[in-house]
Amino acid sequence: MIPIFAIVGASKSGKTTLMEKIVGELKKRNYRVAVIKHDVHGFEIDHKGRDTYRIREAGSDITIISSPEKLALVEKREEESNLEEIIANHINNIDIILLEGYKSHPVPKVEIKKEGQNIITQDDEKLLAIISDEEVTSKLPVIKRDDFLKVVELIEKEINKNPERKLKLYINGNRIPLKNFIHTMFVEIIIGMLKSLKGMEKAKDIIIKLNVKN
Amino acid sequence: MIPIFAIVGASKSGKTTLMEKIVGELKKRNYRVAVIKHDVHGFEIDHKGRDTYRIREAGSDITIISSPEKLALVEKREEESNLEEIIANHINNIDIILLEGYKSHPVPKVEIKKEGQNIITQDDEKLLAIISDEEVTSKLPVIKRDDFLKVVELIEKEINKNPERKLKLYINGNRIPLKNFIHTMFVEIIIGMLKSLKGMEKAKDIIIKLNVKN
Repeated sequence: MIPIFAIVGASKSGKTTLMEKIVGELKKRNYRVAVIKHDVHGFEIDHKGRDTYRIREAGSDITIISSPEKLALVEKREEESNLEEIIANHINNIDIILLEGYKSHPVPKVEIKKEGQNIITQDDEKLLAIISDEEVTSKLPVIKRDDFLKVVELIEKEINKNPERKLKLYINGNRIPLKNFIHTMFVEIIIGMLKSLKGMEKAKDIIIKLNVKN
Repeated sequence: MIPIFAIVGASKSGKTTLMEKIVGELKKRNYRVAVIKHDVHGFEIDHKGRDTYRIREAGSDITIISSPEKLALVEKREEESNLEEIIANHINNIDIILLEGYKSHPVPKVEIKKEGQNIITQDDEKLLAIISDEEVTSKLPVIKRDDFLKVVELIEKEINKNPERKLKLYINGNRIPLKNFIHTMFVEIIIGMLKSLKGMEKAKDIIIKLNVKN
């Protein structure tokens, strides 16, 4: 499982500005970062008249453009993708996923409080702190807007929490990134395969070495 | 394996216009279509100043925006993704993948000939036809630009070619789409699992039914 952390808050509370600072700092610390933004209003991403726009208008369900610097994808949806699906389908080789606007998703989160308004997250035990320059009555820590490094610390803690089961695959010495779904499946297959072997009841580390060619 | 078909041709030969017509027709015929366009020049996809643009500028490796109508993704690359990687990572639940501009990729293809120029595809046994309104000396069929339905026919043939091994998974009666990589792995695992059973040497159809709860 790739760790996930959410930044929630009312519309125009400053989520994107905070996100920019956090992403910048996490990149300085050499993490590979993905951001998933929830949009309720609908958005335009590519430019009218461009090739990809024309192909989408013609009806293409998935349109991808790939260059040496970046890859862009637009997928037509009949209903909104759920987050699990997005992560399983599109996120690979990433250390932390940051969410913007998935306020009800049960992941560790901070709320950036809109000035003069109450917080929107209620009774959420995953809410770790409130970001605000105002006086806030709360049992939770309150972090000033400029103090984004404190949010980065909370996120870094999530990154470093060890998952219970972790499989690493190396082929010819190179670490091969595995998607969540594949990772979980490989773990389950290998544990299933080895289950009835002596010693497995107390197994902690398992190493499998396989030569396919001599 | 999802079938793949490429439209190749020199720059400004009319690939995108042909692609629009083909995609429109395939959609009329109820296929789910993905288009992957190879871009050598670099492209801009989102609009300067927008939230997703700001987050990308801050350094995000993968930036996704999701709404009920569509999902968009931009991935920063250090080198160009290869096509296998793009398909394995991002393409799901699609009947046909159309390529624009991957001229050396060994898949069935047509070339749209730029007026007054020679064709760019040479000695490619996967080249099925040439699109041109000019006189062309070639052993291959030559299709007029307006005759895109003939190209659609070639593509439809590819869609309907049966793969040698095909697995379908249903859970509670619903067909579960499987990505190429997962599909191939499931096929190999199940065949490996059943290999030494009687009758497998002549097996054509295999059905496995599993009740997990009574």
